[in-house]
Amino acid sequence: MTPIQVTVGSVTRELPTVQVGAVQRVPLVEFLGDSEFTKAAAEALVPLLNPQAEIMLTVVTNALPLVHEISDRSGLPYVVVRKKRRTYMQEPLIQEVPSMSLGVNETLWLDARHAQHLQGKKVLIVQDVVASGGTSAALARLAERAGGQVVGYLAAFHYGGRQRNFEVTTLQELPGTDAQG
Amino acid sequence: MTPIQVTVGSVTRELPTVQVGAVQRVPLVEFLGDSEFTKAAAEALVPLLNPQAEIMLTVVTNALPLVHEISDRSGLPYVVVRKKRRTYMQEPLIQEVPSMSLGVNETLWLDARHAQHLQGKKVLIVQDVVASGGTSAALARLAERAGGQVVGYLAAFHYGGRQRNFEVTTLQELPGTDAQG
Repeated sequence: MTPIQVTVGSVTRELPTVQVGAVQRVPLVEFLGDSEFTKAAAEALVPLLNPQAEIMLTVVTNALPLVHEISDRSGLPYVVVRKKRRTYMQEPLIQEVPSMSLGVNETLWLDARHAQHLQGKKVLIVQDVVASGGTSAALARLAERAGGQVVGYLAAFHYGGRQRNFEVTTLQELPGTDAQG
Repeated sequence: MTPIQVTVGSVTRELPTVQVGAVQRVPLVEFLGDSEFTKAAAEALVPLLNPQAEIMLTVVTNALPLVHEISDRSGLPYVVVRKKRRTYMQEPLIQEVPSMSLGVNETLWLDARHAQHLQGKKVLIVQDVVASGGTSAALARLAERAGGQVVGYLAAFHYGGRQRNFEVTTLQELPGTDAQG
């Protein structure tokens, strides 16, 4: 499989494809280490923000600089879900994500101090890439458990997702299947 | 222990202190979810960048939006070290960090695709917070193993570090001990 070329604004990148499991290759989107690409994606995503949204909810790690940029440009605050329990978390909300690629569940952790920012708020779920939608659904569940109302899903890219039962707003579809969340 | 007040540029934050181990409390610096504080810190750190530096090396997770902002403002590229093996890594460089707080070693992973960017380059180690310096030292070792030359250490804050044998340039010292890396 040859690299996949994507263009966002004036920035073009060749995405490598990486092996997931025995037979699949999926595109690898790398915002970490690429501030130019990150800024171009944020700039393109801001006009697509759900105007109802009052706060964004995202998850570590690859989306962090992107969501930071969207927050800075839009003024929307954001909350970050972790994939490991941090020692400082008090009464965290815990949510399982069924993983298709690893065959094991992943666990999401939302510190109660951060969960309280979602209470009573209209929440936009924001990610770098959405595939099966399993992580998105788990983030939405966390937002609801924290007392928020999910008003949409935004991601820079998506692929696969035949089984998703919600709509994700993205810049571009990439070739690929549902191996990743 | 009362919250610790820090002011960076025009931004003031009350840092909570969190329990680490049985007897210590350390300040918790949160750039994730706070784009205003992140930008203020980046703006204050850019003038402190070692002018020799050609590339920055950092580690997930809390420093990511900060290093993205420093990269954007300075034009210096950056490379990110992970704390978990990613499925797509090929021939990663692996480095252990002795952890004081957990009593177990942490493992750092640098993908060979990213390590090659450090080869022959003058590397600045950048973190959000430096305490004992153990993580900084492991990042420096990774940079050297990748063929880079470490020209300095930069962090937004530091505390503790009586045993550090290198100088870290930071905005401010926080009260605290060496419990964290």
